[in-house]
Amino acid sequence: MTERYLDDFTVGQTFRSGRLRINEEQIRRFASEFDPQPFHLDDKAARDTMFRGLAASGWHTAALTMRLLVEGELKPAGGIVGAGIDELRWPRPVRPGDELRVESEVLEVRPSKSRPEQGMIKVRSTTLNESGEGRYRSSSAILWCRANRLHCRKTPPVAGWKPRNWPIDVLHPFEQRWKNWLECH
Amino acid sequence: MTERYLDDFTVGQTFRSGRLRINEEQIRRFASEFDPQPFHLDDKAARDTMFRGLAASGWHTAALTMRLLVEGELKPAGGIVGAGIDELRWPRPVRPGDELRVESEVLEVRPSKSRPEQGMIKVRSTTLNESGEGRYRSSSAILWCRANRLHCRKTPPVAGWKPRNWPIDVLHPFEQRWKNWLECH
Repeated sequence: MTERYLDDFTVGQTFRSGRLRINEEQIRRFASEFDPQPFHLDDKAARDTMFRGLAASGWHTAALTMRLLVEGELKPAGGIVGAGIDELRWPRPVRPGDELRVESEVLEVRPSKSRPEQGMIKVRSTTLNESGEGRYRSSSAILWCRANRLHCRKTPPVAGWKPRNWPIDVLHPFEQRWKNWLECH
Repeated sequence: MTERYLDDFTVGQTFRSGRLRINEEQIRRFASEFDPQPFHLDDKAARDTMFRGLAASGWHTAALTMRLLVEGELKPAGGIVGAGIDELRWPRPVRPGDELRVESEVLEVRPSKSRPEQGMIKVRSTTLNESGEGRYRSSSAILWCRANRLHCRKTPPVAGWKPRNWPIDVLHPFEQRWKNWLECH
């Protein structure tokens, strides 16, 4: 699957991911490093808490969602680089044995005004278990995205060539893109 | 340090955390499991990306923030159990060698209407490096919190005693709390 540039995204597009199954040992290992609380570490201790049994840390669910997104269909050019998330929810915890997958929808596509080599897409993602029950939701993750293929070349379009040192908005659009290319390489 | 119940929190309270230093190997290990993209895996490959060098996955930063919160001063009774976050931002990436700490402020304290044994606090947390530069920000994480000490006992206040089976709002407040205790144990 090839990478998608800003122009390849449109509002309403949907993308899917593969599937990942999570087990008890993984839940405990993540928790012992990042979220060492009884309900994430020990099933017996977890029974006396509001979780009523071992549950994955919400950050483990978020990290697994990222893994599914990186390997999924979304593939923005330049990688999945997040600037932030507008709303994030964990409606129910992930349990040992759950098999997760992610569904994403493009909510907004916006070129950057200050950096024409880049743009931004807003994406809503939902992480579901094998029964289709929501386990995690990020309402509009804000991702950077490369604007066009020119900026992804590893060498300049003309070796040694430099755009004139004028304010970028008075340059020819082609020169603007080269100037941006030089600035982002 | 003892746990804090809902009544122990007031709007405007601030809490600090300890410090954690992150190294290159940890960044790569987290990324290879959860966010396998070049700018999180390999410093050389990362130089050709918008990160200009190895950077921690934003989810690694979030997970480290959780570790600092769990071991920090906040200590809500029942643990740090998040229902969601209203806004999450990564203004700049975390780099190898960064030493992180978290500052938190209570924004809201709200008893639950449907579950009087519980309440909710909203907390804004900022993760800073050793120079005091912001690396991660969660504007109002929504955390569950136990409402009072009665609900944290492991055995009922009077063994075998049961509140009358009336609608909870017509019971005596003390009986309400016991009913809630039984429901959440």
